[in-house]
Amino acid sequence: MQISVRNKLAGTVKEVKLGAVMAEVIVQVGDNQVISAITKDAAEDLALKAGDKVTVLVKSTSVMIQK
Amino acid sequence: MQISVRNKLAGTVKEVKLGAVMAEVIVQVGDNQVISAITKDAAEDLALKAGDKVTVLVKSTSVMIQK
Amino acid sequence: MQISVRNKLAGTVKEVKLGAVMAEVIVQVGDNQVISAITKDAAEDLALKAGDKVTVLVKSTSVMIQK
Amino acid sequence: MQISVRNKLAGTVKEVKLGAVMAEVIVQVGDNQVISAITKDAAEDLALKAGDKVTVLVKSTSVMIQK
Amino acid sequence: MQISVRNKLAGTVKEVKLGAVMAEVIVQVGDNQVISAITKDAAEDLALKAGDKVTVLVKSTSVMIQK
Amino acid sequence: MQISVRNKLAGTVKEVKLGAVMAEVIVQVGDNQVISAITKDAAEDLALKAGDKVTVLVKSTSVMIQK
Repeated sequence: MQISVRNKLAGTVKEVKLGAVMAEVIVQVGDNQVISAITKDAAEDLALKAGDKVTVLVKSTSVMIQK
Repeated sequence: MQISVRNKLAGTVKEVKLGAVMAEVIVQVGDNQVISAITKDAAEDLALKAGDKVTVLVKSTSVMIQK
Repeated sequence: MQISVRNKLAGTVKEVKLGAVMAEVIVQVGDNQVISAITKDAAEDLALKAGDKVTVLVKSTSVMIQK
Repeated sequence: MQISVRNKLAGTVKEVKLGAVMAEVIVQVGDNQVISAITKDAAEDLALKAGDKVTVLVKSTSVMIQK
Repeated sequence: MQISVRNKLAGTVKEVKLGAVMAEVIVQVGDNQVISAITKDAAEDLALKAGDKVTVLVKSTSVMIQK
Repeated sequence: MQISVRNKLAGTVKEVKLGAVMAEVIVQVGDNQVISAITKDAAEDLALKAGDKVTVLVKSTSVMIQK
């Protein structure tokens, strides 16, 4: 199965913070840290925890450019 | 000036494709290619072209995780 | 592999319209039509065409409610 | 009044979870469940509760395709 | 009918640019111009044209802050 | 430095509400209030508080039109 999302960056989960509804997931991607805000339910369904090998996904229409 | 956007990845523009309304910008970020879909007007205002040093910005709520 | 995206609706592609940069994909999901705007490159990479069985994905933070 | 949003799916609220800032709303749409993450203020302004007849709205640029 | 979208700004359409798939709509909101990128089909369904009184809608999770 | 984001509205922070993971920031922009949902970490990094002069940013692809 293939997904239309253009941006797929491999990384390692550094930290997961759970709120009441949302969760923040910090992923190390090469030299950068990428922060993801997903629902707590999603974080729990994937059982996300530090050390997990994951792929960060971003739709092209959500990417901005600064120059 | 600081911006609330959490994800800021430095890279180099590889290619800019202009459509009638939208533009696609391909940015090399380390070993990854990041694709951005912005308006043609935005691409022209920033005069984006191959070789430009840019920063790719993504709001945390737009980042998904695959495991 | 599992994805954090909460909303996954199975459907059938009805039509694909290609522009210079973007593409519009119309998917029949039960009694509803769901419209997706993705990059033309994504539509071509997935070789999307009428009749394809696909899954429509939407991040929870992109869903609004009207009452 | 008409809205530019392409995707409008009729459903019934199954559950509303309130956090400090955000709320998660689970809507039954035909055979599918659709999850929406909106602000708690929005959930309270609409007085969303189980049993409410609602319409789920999604902008086309937020819809991804998996094949 | 009420919508969960928090941000609703009244304005007047200044210009509509149609592409093959997408459209750009420029709306005067007080002293500011707001640019919207929607599908061409949406722009045509609403028959958007210069002079139209419209409301610009933005979900809170799409709003960033610069300081 | 310039950013591809088309919509930049100057305003004044009226209130900041911090949750466990997310924060809601209410900004007065002319006669309108604009609500932003960002991560708590972003709100703290910018030290956002009532009275701050800020700029609200919205990507064009996140703007909808109601007529």
